[in-house]
Amino acid sequence: MTYDVIIIGGGPSGLSAAIYASRARLKTLLIEKNGCGGQMTVTDLLENYPGFNDGINGFDLAVKLEMQARDFGTEIMYDEVTSIENGVVKKVISINGACETKTIIVAAGTSVKKMNIPGEEKFIGKGVSFCAICDAPFYKGKDVVVIGGGDSAIQEAIYLSNFAKNVIVVHRRDALRATKILQEKMASRANISVIYDSIPKEIFGNDSIEKIGITNTKTNEDKDLQVDGIFVFIGLIPNTLFLSNLTLDKNGYVITDENMNTSIPGIFACGDIRKKQLRQVVTAASDGAQAAVSAQHYIEN
Amino acid sequence: MTYDVIIIGGGPSGLSAAIYASRARLKTLLIEKNGCGGQMTVTDLLENYPGFNDGINGFDLAVKLEMQARDFGTEIMYDEVTSIENGVVKKVISINGACETKTIIVAAGTSVKKMNIPGEEKFIGKGVSFCAICDAPFYKGKDVVVIGGGDSAIQEAIYLSNFAKNVIVVHRRDALRATKILQEKMASRANISVIYDSIPKEIFGNDSIEKIGITNTKTNEDKDLQVDGIFVFIGLIPNTLFLSNLTLDKNGYVITDENMNTSIPGIFACGDIRKKQLRQVVTAASDGAQAAVSAQHYIEN
Repeated sequence: MTYDVIIIGGGPSGLSAAIYASRARLKTLLIEKNGCGGQMTVTDLLENYPGFNDGINGFDLAVKLEMQARDFGTEIMYDEVTSIENGVVKKVISINGACETKTIIVAAGTSVKKMNIPGEEKFIGKGVSFCAICDAPFYKGKDVVVIGGGDSAIQEAIYLSNFAKNVIVVHRRDALRATKILQEKMASRANISVIYDSIPKEIFGNDSIEKIGITNTKTNEDKDLQVDGIFVFIGLIPNTLFLSNLTLDKNGYVITDENMNTSIPGIFACGDIRKKQLRQVVTAASDGAQAAVSAQHYIEN
Repeated sequence: MTYDVIIIGGGPSGLSAAIYASRARLKTLLIEKNGCGGQMTVTDLLENYPGFNDGINGFDLAVKLEMQARDFGTEIMYDEVTSIENGVVKKVISINGACETKTIIVAAGTSVKKMNIPGEEKFIGKGVSFCAICDAPFYKGKDVVVIGGGDSAIQEAIYLSNFAKNVIVVHRRDALRATKILQEKMASRANISVIYDSIPKEIFGNDSIEKIGITNTKTNEDKDLQVDGIFVFIGLIPNTLFLSNLTLDKNGYVITDENMNTSIPGIFACGDIRKKQLRQVVTAASDGAQAAVSAQHYIEN
């Protein structure tokens, strides 16, 4: 059997593509590695997805999107895609098999960037976390460090401040990149402080984290922070390892035009994985809709 | 007083821009001519806006978007913009005054296209309608014609079939442009029929519509259809009359790049009014978010 569309990734762009493709009566398979929703499932409250004026929990929105896609007829399979093959009929190869399809929509999103410092690997899941919502409750009354200065870092620092005794934000520059509303919100929390111009150097501890060493990049001074947990929000890496055949930019993002066409006809990319300015749930959903319509046009012509 | 952003138009793109701009703490004014929501307010059930898995009424979604924008601090003014002026400080001139602003986001959307045939003007609002949801209840048990063959036309024909005795779709081509799911839905309604290759010529009647004359474009044969109402869904015209200073395409749509920049720095366009492939609520909302972020970057730099 040949699908009309195989969508790789079940975040908001993949699910939106699934909604549009299956509503257009295309035979649609979505392949997701873990669980649907992507990065937004670790967001406690999405305030700016247009239409949910009281905000919505990222996981709840994921469930709604998945139901919407399934209701229109999308088939969802849990598996990890390892490569794709171009041709008149294209192939999507995953760990448990291979599927044939007329078009492919790549919506595999991004992964979190690690610090790559001594001690990090040892303590991942045991003190080093990339998800405040997942792990904040373990740090009730304890001291934590947040690495980063963008929207995610500050959002997560605010969230953590509801649990932890003290939250120290360590940022490599002399000013935060986060939007003003988040900075204002953070300023109103007495238990959050910021250390600027500093980068993490090493994590120390035996069974659990005892301290993290940081270095001031301007003065070269070293400093140790006694903390129980380290939350890392320093950026994202596009999940393009399996896409050796598509044209990527220097950071690994897939290059597309405005209609989500990649360098290979019949293969489309949408959402966080593609090179673009603004990575938000609503821009991902819009990308997905456009990718599905472009796939439909490709099949018809 | 100078605003950071003035948004022209309160459809989904304008409201989404308002949500993003005011959440970023920009002083934001939105000017809307009629009532917020734009074209989608005449849509009974939006099935494909990602996140509302049971569908949502267009007017209900408009209310949610407006509340979301107001909650973040957007000011909304009801007035009709007549022109915009560029400069270090820009000006938005409307019927009741003029406002100064650092940036302008044009989200004025589109208007419905008329047939331009004898009798049309005379019967607008008295038998000729551009909105099934507004007027369908008046045609309970009566006969109506739908002009057009795209998504809107077929969607509205299906809606009308819940009220009217008979719905005749008159389409100028030999096949419909509407998506398959809509065509299938229409096929399941016994009281909808389609006349292909035909265009409307003239509307006849005294106090009310008596019949519409149509011509077969292949055979040149004329034919009269005895109907009580005529619903017109033949396309849209971008509301760009007041934008003499921006670069438009040959159909009047505003030309932008992917980040919503127009030909004038500091003036952005988003949603249905800009030249693009897919005009949907979700793509409009995404455009609006991007326009607000581009306006923010413009102000910061």
